[in-house]
This record gives sequence, C-alpha cells and structure tokens, in this order.
Amino acid sequence: MAQVEREQDPGELPYRAHNIPKLGFAEYWYPIVTSRELKAKPKGVRLLGRDIVIYRDAGKLYALDDRCPHRGVKLSLGECLYKGTGTISCPYHGWTFDGANGKLVAAIMDGPEAPITRKVTIRHYPIREHAGMIWLWGGETEPSRLEEDIPEWIADQQTFFSMPMYTDYACNWRWLVDNWGNDQHAQYVHRKSPELFFQPQLPFNLTIEPKPLPNGRGMAFKRIGGVTSAEFPGLGRFPNNEWWRFMKPRGRGNIRGFENSKAHKVYGIPNQSEVWLPGMVLVGRLHGEYALVQLAVPIDENTTRCFNINNFRRTGKLVEWFDRLHYYLWRGWAHDRIFSDQDKVLLEAVIPGPERLSKSDLGVIAWRKFMGSNARRPPGLKEAARDVA
Amino acid sequence: MAQVEREQDPGELPYRAHNIPKLGFAEYWYPIVTSRELKAKPKGVRLLGRDIVIYRDAGKLYALDDRCPHRGVKLSLGECLYKGTGTISCPYHGWTFDGANGKLVAAIMDGPEAPITRKVTIRHYPIREHAGMIWLWGGETEPSRLEEDIPEWIADQQTFFSMPMYTDYACNWRWLVDNWGNDQHAQYVHRKSPELFFQPQLPFNLTIEPKPLPNGRGMAFKRIGGVTSAEFPGLGRFPNNEWWRFMKPRGRGNIRGFENSKAHKVYGIPNQSEVWLPGMVLVGRLHGEYALVQLAVPIDENTTRCFNINNFRRTGKLVEWFDRLHYYLWRGWAHDRIFSDQDKVLLEAVIPGPERLSKSDLGVIAWRKFMGSNARRPPGLKEAARDVA
Amino acid sequence: MAQVEREQDPGELPYRAHNIPKLGFAEYWYPIVTSRELKAKPKGVRLLGRDIVIYRDAGKLYALDDRCPHRGVKLSLGECLYKGTGTISCPYHGWTFDGANGKLVAAIMDGPEAPITRKVTIRHYPIREHAGMIWLWGGETEPSRLEEDIPEWIADQQTFFSMPMYTDYACNWRWLVDNWGNDQHAQYVHRKSPELFFQPQLPFNLTIEPKPLPNGRGMAFKRIGGVTSAEFPGLGRFPNNEWWRFMKPRGRGNIRGFENSKAHKVYGIPNQSEVWLPGMVLVGRLHGEYALVQLAVPIDENTTRCFNINNFRRTGKLVEWFDRLHYYLWRGWAHDRIFSDQDKVLLEAVIPGPERLSKSDLGVIAWRKFMGSNARRPPGLKEAARDVA
Repeated sequence: MAQVEREQDPGELPYRAHNIPKLGFAEYWYPIVTSRELKAKPKGVRLLGRDIVIYRDAGKLYALDDRCPHRGVKLSLGECLYKGTGTISCPYHGWTFDGANGKLVAAIMDGPEAPITRKVTIRHYPIREHAGMIWLWGGETEPSRLEEDIPEWIADQQTFFSMPMYTDYACNWRWLVDNWGNDQHAQYVHRKSPELFFQPQLPFNLTIEPKPLPNGRGMAFKRIGGVTSAEFPGLGRFPNNEWWRFMKPRGRGNIRGFENSKAHKVYGIPNQSEVWLPGMVLVGRLHGEYALVQLAVPIDENTTRCFNINNFRRTGKLVEWFDRLHYYLWRGWAHDRIFSDQDKVLLEAVIPGPERLSKSDLGVIAWRKFMGSNARRPPGLKEAARDVA
Repeated sequence: MAQVEREQDPGELPYRAHNIPKLGFAEYWYPIVTSRELKAKPKGVRLLGRDIVIYRDAGKLYALDDRCPHRGVKLSLGECLYKGTGTISCPYHGWTFDGANGKLVAAIMDGPEAPITRKVTIRHYPIREHAGMIWLWGGETEPSRLEEDIPEWIADQQTFFSMPMYTDYACNWRWLVDNWGNDQHAQYVHRKSPELFFQPQLPFNLTIEPKPLPNGRGMAFKRIGGVTSAEFPGLGRFPNNEWWRFMKPRGRGNIRGFENSKAHKVYGIPNQSEVWLPGMVLVGRLHGEYALVQLAVPIDENTTRCFNINNFRRTGKLVEWFDRLHYYLWRGWAHDRIFSDQDKVLLEAVIPGPERLSKSDLGVIAWRKFMGSNARRPPGLKEAARDVA
Repeated sequence: MAQVEREQDPGELPYRAHNIPKLGFAEYWYPIVTSRELKAKPKGVRLLGRDIVIYRDAGKLYALDDRCPHRGVKLSLGECLYKGTGTISCPYHGWTFDGANGKLVAAIMDGPEAPITRKVTIRHYPIREHAGMIWLWGGETEPSRLEEDIPEWIADQQTFFSMPMYTDYACNWRWLVDNWGNDQHAQYVHRKSPELFFQPQLPFNLTIEPKPLPNGRGMAFKRIGGVTSAEFPGLGRFPNNEWWRFMKPRGRGNIRGFENSKAHKVYGIPNQSEVWLPGMVLVGRLHGEYALVQLAVPIDENTTRCFNINNFRRTGKLVEWFDRLHYYLWRGWAHDRIFSDQDKVLLEAVIPGPERLSKSDLGVIAWRKFMGSNARRPPGLKEAARDVA
C-alpha cells in the first residue's frame, strides 16, 4: 500500500527515477550538533528518521538507539551513572548499556548476576567529534574515514579552522540539495541579500557544464556564458532600476577569473564551487582563504538540519581573531542568517508535485543523476537501485 | 478506498443523497477577502480546497494557482516585478506568469529567449472586485455574471452600499448552510442575544412551507403557525421567567406583517428572508432599508469563511453616515460578533454522524433537496449527480 | 485493515496475548473528575474514548452521550433548562433528554406535541458521587456496587476520609498499570525523590511472588530477598556515594516488618501494598493510618487520567485537620507532584515496540496475566478473549 502510494506521488517521481531516498543516504557521516551543545548530560537527536542518544564520557563519545529494549523508555532521559565506563543507564530500571558496542552490561534492578546481562544488544552508531561538530554514521556498512569524505577545508583542521552553526528547515532534505550550487536560483533569490549589497547583478542564463571531481565524491559546474542584464519583451529589463549597484564584485559575488586567482594559482584549489555527496555545497573565494560549506542533514521526512560551516585558512593568530570577529559581526548575520533564510522561506513553501525543468535546472538534473549513480548504498541495495533507475 | 470510506461515513450520508460536495459547489462566485486586505503585495488564499494567489496590478485583479509548476514554490511569496504588465514572478527563479491567461511569459534565469517561454500555462481564475470584496470563480465552466448571481442588495451598489466582514469557522461549510434561514434554531440559540434583548420570544414550532424563488436561485420559506410560549408536560414553560421581554418587536425580531410592510409595499421586496445558492441567507427588515446577507465560503474540508455583509439602502449622505456609525457602534458588535459567534460555537462543536431530523428541519430538508437539484455543476457531472440522488 | 495493523504492531503484542484493550476495561467504575469540579453547568468529559456529558440537577447526577442525535452538537454546551427534572437541553434546538434514561422528553422548537418526543433515546451511564469524586460506569452490563469494587480505604468513608487529585498523562493507560506496585522501578526512578530523602536505598533485586487477593479483585506481591547495595562488575556500586542517606526508613520507605506492624496486628490489614482491577495500586503504611491509592483512568488511546487518592483513617477531628494540613504542606507536593511526575516524564517517553522482560518484570507479567483472566468483560466477549489468549 505505502509502496503504491509512493509510486503514485508525483512529487516523488524525479527522485524515484534515481533512487534518492526520502530519508537520506545512510552510508555517510553527518554532523548532528555542534560540540558545545553536547555537555555532561546525554542528548536525544534524530538522524535519517531514527532516534539516537549521544553522550560523552571520560572524553569519549558514544551513540546508541534511543530506546531501551526493556520497556521502551528513551535512554536520552537517563544518565551516565558510572563515569569512565562509557555506559549509559536507562532512567526506568537502570538497564545499563556499553556505548562502545551496545551491549547490556547491567540490569541494575535485577542485581549483578542477572541472567539477562550481556544477552541484549542495541544498535550503536559510529560517532566522531571533528571541527567543532559531533558526526554520526547512520549506515549499515563499515564507516568510511570521515576526513576522506569531506572537503579538506573541514577535514584538515591544521591548515584551516571551521565555525559551524545550523538551522532546522521544515522540509525534506532533497529540496535543499536541489537548491544548491548546481542550481541557478542565487542570482534571483539572493540578488538583494546584504552579502551582495552594492555589487553588480550575478550573471544568469548560464550554460552549466558539469564535471565530476577526480575523487568521485561530487561535481564541479563550469559556467558558460551568462548575462548580468537582459530585456524581456513585453516586460522590461532584469534587473531593473538598480542604481545602487556601484561596487565592484567581491566576496561571494566575485565569480569571474578563478583560473588566474590566488586560490587556484597559489593554493592549487581546483574549483571555486563544488557539490559533494551526500548533500553538500562548497563555495570558495578568489583569495583562497575562506570557503563556506553547507550540508543538508536529513532528520526525518519533513525536517532537515542545514549546517553552515564557515572555514578559514590559518594564516596567523592575529588574522584568525580578525576572521572570528568578522564572522560574529558580519558574515554570521549576513550569510548564515539573512542569505540562508532567504532559501529557507522558499524551500519550506514548496508544494510537492510534478515539476517542469528547464535550462536553469541543467545542474539539478546532472546532480540528481550523479547522486543516483554514485551514492554509497548498503550492499544488496545497489543492484536494486539500478533496476529502478 | 477513499470512495468506500466516504460511503460508509454516516456524517456524509445526508449530503451524498443530494450530491452536495464536501468542498463546496465550484461553479459560483465567492467573496474571499475584503478589498482593503489586498494591497500591493500578492496574497495567498484558499478556496474550495485549492491554493490560489491573488494580486492587483495597475488597477486590475488577477488570480492564479498558487504553485509554480517549475519547482513547486508558492507564487504568493513572489512579487509583481513588472508593474503594469499584469504578471507575477516566482520568488525562486523568476518564472513570470501572465495573470490574464496563466501563461509563462518569461523564465528570467533562463534569459529572454528561453525555449520554455509560453510553453507552460497554469490555471487562472476569474476574479472581480465588487461591494468592497474580492470575488473568485472557482469553477471549470465560464463564469456567470456576478451581479446576476447575488441579491440586488449587494449587486446594485448604486441603490445600496455594503459593509462586509468575515470570520473563519473551523467546520465544514454545510454545517453553516444547514444552520441558516431555513432552520429553526434562531428562536432557541439567539433568544438571549443582545440583538433581541428586551424583545418578545421569536415564534417557534412553525410549519415551514418552502417556495422556490422565480429566478431559480434559491428559496423563501413561508412560516405558518408558531407560538411564542408553550407548556411542556413534566418540564415547564418555554421560555420561562422572561420578565425582561417588555419591548415590542423591532429589527430582526420584527417578523410579522411583511405583506403590509414598507419593504413590500413601497420597495416591492418579495420576501423578508431568502436562501440562495450556493450557500447564502438574506434577512431583511420591514422598513426595507437594510438587509443582512450571510455567505458560507468553503475554504477546505474543515474551514469555512463566514461573510457577514451588511447592506443599507442609499437614502442620502447623512443617513449613510448614520448607518455606518450605527454599524460600528452597535450592529457590527451585536450581530456580526455576538449573534454570529453563538452559531460558531455550536457549529464547531458538531460531531459528524447519523442525524435524526424532525419538524424543525423541514426547511433544512427542503433546502438540501433544492441544492441537489438546482446547483450549477460542471458539465458531465450533472447527470452523475442525478444517478446518485 | 485496522485489525491487520493492530496484529502487526509489536507494541500491542504483549497486551493482545491477554486481551487487554487499548481503551481500557469498560465494565468498571472509574472516577472522572473531583466533586468540586462539577458545578451547576454541565461538563463534557472523555472516558474509554467516549464523549460523555455529566451534570447535577436537584442533588442528583446524570451522565449521557455527549452528542445530540438530532444534528450532532455536543450536549455539554447546553444547559439544564428545567431545574429539578433531571433533564439537559441541547444548545441548538432545545432537544431535551432525561438523564435518568436518555429519553428525548421534548424537542422544544417542535412544540409540546412533537411526534418525535420519546421516540429517540441516547445512551446514559450509571454515575455516582463518592469520596469527593464523580464516578462513571462505562460498561454495557449492569453496574457493580461501587463500594465492593474499590479498596475499603475509599469505600468506607465513615472510617476513612479521602483527598483525591489527578494529573493527565499523555500516554496509554497500560503504561501506568505496568508501572505500578508490581513493578520494580520505584527503587530506581524515585531513589532521589523528596519523599525518600535521607532514607536508605529501597531494596532491589527482589523476587516477587504474586498472591491473588481472596476477593478476586487483585493481587498482593510478596517480596523475597533483595539488597540495598550491590557491586556491579566493571561498573561500580549501586547506589553510589550516598552519604546523605542517614535517616531510618519511614513512611513509604518503611517496607520491612509488615507482619508485626500496627497496620497488620491492630487494624488487620492483610497487605501493605496491593494491585486491583481494573488498574489501581494501593500503598499503605506500617502504622495503618494512611494509604495512597493510584488509579489509571483511560481517557482515550493516548491520554490517561492518573488519580492520586490520599486516604486517612479518621481518628479524631484534630488529627484529621493535622492530616489535611500535612497533605497541603508536604505530601501533596512531595508525592502527588514530584514523586508522581517522575513516573509521568518516563511513561510519556515510552516508544511502543517490542519488549525484553526480565526478573524485575515478574510482577508485571503476573499482573497482565491476572488482568487477562480475571477482568470483567461484556458477555460474549469473554469467550472470544479466551480464544485469543
């Protein structure tokens, strides 16, 4: 029945063609909260539609299914009763689980020799702390090495430092991924964003030429042609009357000449902008000393945690403090709030249904196809996926 | 499945017998907001379960399906980018639609020569501004002439002027229509309403004789017999102990002698009270200089917009100002709030299920039958309706 | 379909095995509100998933289905128009029902001789006021005698007096019953409750030996063995570091030596703690002058009204006033709020699903089985129940 409904749902059709799951690709690392949010107390989170409890003990991190198999209470209401053992105890009868393997190591109300001890195991999840975020692996296979799965800007915290924050969107994760990098909405949606104030209109009507990254993790998009102004017959110019655009392009707005930029020539960065699996966009600068990574974390069918990770090249303590100050005073507000929320309002207002794709969606189409063919899948499912696609 | 459920739902049975749809009769004009609510910005509304965007441009009104067919975003979050062209632009990639015919006239991000231009059309709805309200035609057939579909009190703004307001009820539209004019609830529900304070009890236990209006648009109900007091064996009198009813009937309470009234004799008004398709009640006065029209607008299955339209005969500027003042100081409160909300509380507390109709429902039964036989329906459906009824 | 779903729902399995219904055992008396809550106006309540209106008239109580069969409005919005007749009138057209038998005695808008009078009957429910509570019988069979169905502490208000209060839990009633008396959660969940402050840890790892009560209404549980401290290998002691437990056991914490207590020897109370059908726990004191009764009232599938009924032996006016003061200043807060809400937080966080029962659940298992075999059921259903179990 549920299968039938899904097949008939016109909003699912474009994703079903590439077997892109509603609840997200599971065989990936996802950041779930910032480091500072996970304090001494266990914390209940959701990822890929599952309830998970995460906790710290003696400097280590643990993640378990957030339901005690005894009588069903959430473990995240419990506590780490035995500090230093990596265990969490259920608040109801003290069933105590080892976070390292999910094994029941004590059923306190049953006493030390309880026969049930070690006979029950719940699912545990690989968990990491990195770059100021707690990362979870929701897949069924062995986890990949986190540092190989994410852009160097976040992976290599010796060379860079990251400032992460997130906002929850009330929509499916695929709306966010469709919206990123590969799509030509920014030129329209964000044209009056404070981040681009006083700058020229971003070029639109581009021809997008997707090129897969050599590491197989994503794509870059070559932008060919494009105009910054056009006359629409019977309507008028776009953009119109923008006398206030007197500045030269800078920051995000500076998207021409990457081949001759410091980023490319000095730092050897191959592309200014890239899209990565499972749902990430990287947007750099010509000076090569900053890049933003946005990452869509599927919480459940109708909730997505959008991480905005601001990454700076370490070029000395003084510059680092300036970067942080600049983030708090300007960028954190101008991008992570205003710019990003311009997308949020629209994506939360999507009414799923049939689509009519056009030239501006060439990147979207290419990226969906890339995801369908290249996303990691649990063994066995990969073949099934091919059948459907 | 849905069909089966509907057939088994005892709350649907009385309406199914006459093929009275849950979401309302579509082939009619409905007021949706007051004129002053529709300003420069487009506005999203719901009617008959559909999302519709309405907007003004250069003094004209437009109404379109409130979903961009490109990627599904609500057009009502967009703007009229090209003033004077009657178009609205989607906030996501600037797909621009002509409100006059629903045609895509530009996909801004794709540039002026985009091949998709004019190849996509969305549904547009006939829209009118009249008597201080914005009216929409939600049907599939050619719209009727609005002025012929509504009582002269609203249609002829040379002779009358209208003061509209509305309240949203959290219930199906049919509960409101069942409740009006044709029903004998007012004598009970509103017997202590401020509008009827100090006046005699309205007569109850009437025999209702329905007579179709000559224009085919509704019915009047001849009220035969009735008492203003009765002794119920084993219980007592109804009403009881109402020493405070010392006034003579006036206003709404004055329902005897319409044949000899000024309304009838001088102004030639045929009935004091009438019910009209698709779901409207008109209640006049003996002096013939005022009539209230209540209109049930189906928003979705469980929401109905109840318009209270107060209509006054234009008899000179001074009287008009007095009428407006009187409305603001007394009638707007006494009827449109207190009196009307007495119904709202009850109708929102209806638990759908089987009914037991009786003498007081003769008008309800007649009116349901009238609706079933006389309501406009899209071509093709009319016959199907007969089969069911 | 619904049947299939229920069979597949792993959270229902343990209850289905004993035919313990989601909406509660109907053939019992349940308190629904406190006496002081039911004033002159009728009140709508829910019990066993049904909407019921209760009202007082001339010192008598009445309970009827809270839906007028005429046009579906809730009777609880109506009023007792004819004081002293035991009737309630629907707010819509004045259909008036006799609370004693549910008969329609007048349809006011149809006048005194309305043919429909006495031809319509709605369901009426046995209702009682006792010990400061309003009790309803939701069953289809003849009601039992209330006083025989409940513990003497509440039944015999000559010897005892009761102080009831309640809290609504957002969960199914069975979670509460599983949680009571028969279960070994208190030693863990409530170990830091103010009611047990400074007292020794309650013994855990008990072997529970259920013994049915001679009256067939419930069970007592013999507690064998148990420890107040234990070393868990690789973890540590439970409880740990509790230097502040310097008091001797008292009140609820005093659970040893009931055989030699005043309660048993002087007052002849057989057990300190008992569980009763349909879902009640009684917890007494060694001095035999106080007992708490907690009672789970099924409102609907996901709501349970938890009554905490504090019962005191009448031993003179002065002591009674002291008891009341003590309740208001200490016990009402320490137990009915803090202690009881410790359960509420957990039970509302239950995620229904498969269970893994263990030694601490021996009482739960015994009690479910007892309920399945001994609960009153409507005639005809008893056999069906056996088939399933």
